[in-house]
Amino acid sequence: MRVAVVGLGLIGGSLLRALAAAGHEVTGFDADSATREAARAAGFRIAGSVAGAAAGSELTALAVPLPVLPEVIPQLAGADGLVTDVTSVKGPVRDLMKAHGVRRFVGGHPMAGKETSGFAASEKDLFAGCAWVLCLEPHETDFGDWLTLARLFTGMGARVVPVTAAEHDTAAAQISHVPHLFAAALAEQIVANPLAGALGAGSFRDGTRVAATRPELTAAMCGGNRDAVRTELHRLIGVLEEMSGALDSDDPVSALVPHLRLGAQARRAWPATPGRPEKVPATTQSLLDLGRSGGWVTSVGDTDVVALRPEAALRPESDRNSS
Amino acid sequence: MRVAVVGLGLIGGSLLRALAAAGHEVTGFDADSATREAARAAGFRIAGSVAGAAAGSELTALAVPLPVLPEVIPQLAGADGLVTDVTSVKGPVRDLMKAHGVRRFVGGHPMAGKETSGFAASEKDLFAGCAWVLCLEPHETDFGDWLTLARLFTGMGARVVPVTAAEHDTAAAQISHVPHLFAAALAEQIVANPLAGALGAGSFRDGTRVAATRPELTAAMCGGNRDAVRTELHRLIGVLEEMSGALDSDDPVSALVPHLRLGAQARRAWPATPGRPEKVPATTQSLLDLGRSGGWVTSVGDTDVVALRPEAALRPESDRNSS
Repeated sequence: MRVAVVGLGLIGGSLLRALAAAGHEVTGFDADSATREAARAAGFRIAGSVAGAAAGSELTALAVPLPVLPEVIPQLAGADGLVTDVTSVKGPVRDLMKAHGVRRFVGGHPMAGKETSGFAASEKDLFAGCAWVLCLEPHETDFGDWLTLARLFTGMGARVVPVTAAEHDTAAAQISHVPHLFAAALAEQIVANPLAGALGAGSFRDGTRVAATRPELTAAMCGGNRDAVRTELHRLIGVLEEMSGALDSDDPVSALVPHLRLGAQARRAWPATPGRPEKVPATTQSLLDLGRSGGWVTSVGDTDVVALRPEAALRPESDRNSS
Repeated sequence: MRVAVVGLGLIGGSLLRALAAAGHEVTGFDADSATREAARAAGFRIAGSVAGAAAGSELTALAVPLPVLPEVIPQLAGADGLVTDVTSVKGPVRDLMKAHGVRRFVGGHPMAGKETSGFAASEKDLFAGCAWVLCLEPHETDFGDWLTLARLFTGMGARVVPVTAAEHDTAAAQISHVPHLFAAALAEQIVANPLAGALGAGSFRDGTRVAATRPELTAAMCGGNRDAVRTELHRLIGVLEEMSGALDSDDPVSALVPHLRLGAQARRAWPATPGRPEKVPATTQSLLDLGRSGGWVTSVGDTDVVALRPEAALRPESDRNSS
């Protein structure tokens, strides 16, 4: 497949390497000339512009930060290939593509990262075993295009997760964006109380690790997904208030246990052990059901896909009632 | 020094080993006969009762869980040595000792832990480099007794942190108890949304790690320190609501950054780099000032102690106003 990768940082650079390693015909571009030189020196074909990279490509992968997308998208005008992206928020990008009249778009989000960034940190195996969200909107996404991308990314070893943009954004708020806000709130405590900093051990270390992220990056992530982040943050504030209510009771220890049990069970069972590989019909509804159950696609056939999903689904109802 | 250690789990067993290694004359006791046998087999002198262990000891260290203390303390009646403990909450234990008429008590809390528990997991070096809170109450704690314990624990390589019980309990709520509640709230999200569990990566993994703790243990910790936990939890809920307010603004990204910056600076500077060793007068006020500034005692002389404290104190005022 002829693929253009625009933006050659950690994710884009790794995608360029992974696609080339899988035998695809890749062309890269980056706005930074030193990055272009580094990629050329690594042996890749590098175009002189976004339009130059996209021209003649069957797929253009936009691996630029969210705030840069509005500048880059208009430069695709005239190219008629498929377009995907890798940003961490999917609803706003979907809106952006519609606003710019990009017809063949399938949003993506590889859940891969490292402490380091830039083309120098990129590696061809970054996506092996990583979850790669691939958005599938009923009555909107071209199903053939979706399968093309699912085949491409599973071919690189990624776990392709079929979800709607809205479902992705809610899940991302829950497992990434709100946890960053929690970590920031916990970390700030030691500013006014150095004693607490001196006593902090494992639970402080782990609970605050991502608070060290550059504030501008965390703010961009959360602000870019603000509707979902607000909704999930409000819900969690309610959960914390219920815990506080339990502490007010006559027997705070017994009252608090039920508020902790489901989280403990869930965390011990995480990450889920996949069950046996199963064939899932290649239809929008079957694939969205797979994603909602915590499953993912491992390879793509003509009429069905091979999928894995968690071995034992959590049973909140029965657990809630257990002693 | 003749020391009795009551309760030979991870902490008590390690204390028995560390004191013996430092040349002290130790006697142990545990309510569980198999644990007593294991400790005897490891070469330790083991008494047949709490009173038998405490009799003739200059110090009795109670290394039993908080709920067990009310049963154990009355068994010390008649013994006139110094008493300390190792539980994770200090105000309630101080009240308990007063209620039982224990005169010579200095509360302690070694911030040491492992994933494993029990005598089999104990090791003589568990406390090397760990913070060991040693409570110092103005007009209440016998200063000579405090120095005796500080000498004992610094001799095992621990960093002795002088604080009041109330200051300890606030700090423990901030850096351990409330982080456990945050982790539980975050972990429970994936019960209703398996998709989120499938997408969870580093920030979810670390932010929820301690949610896997047995719910009864977390509830006992938080319930045992409920006044401080409620106060700190309410304050943090307020911080999260301010972040939510920032997300409501016209420019959520810019509005959120100031709410993240102090936490990011604090987390990057944690754990603090200690400055040069300094001599601190051995007075209650000087030692409490040391603890409040995030410092600790490394060795104890006759009229002063050698101490370390963070090299550069965080400066919240100037940072708050920086661009």
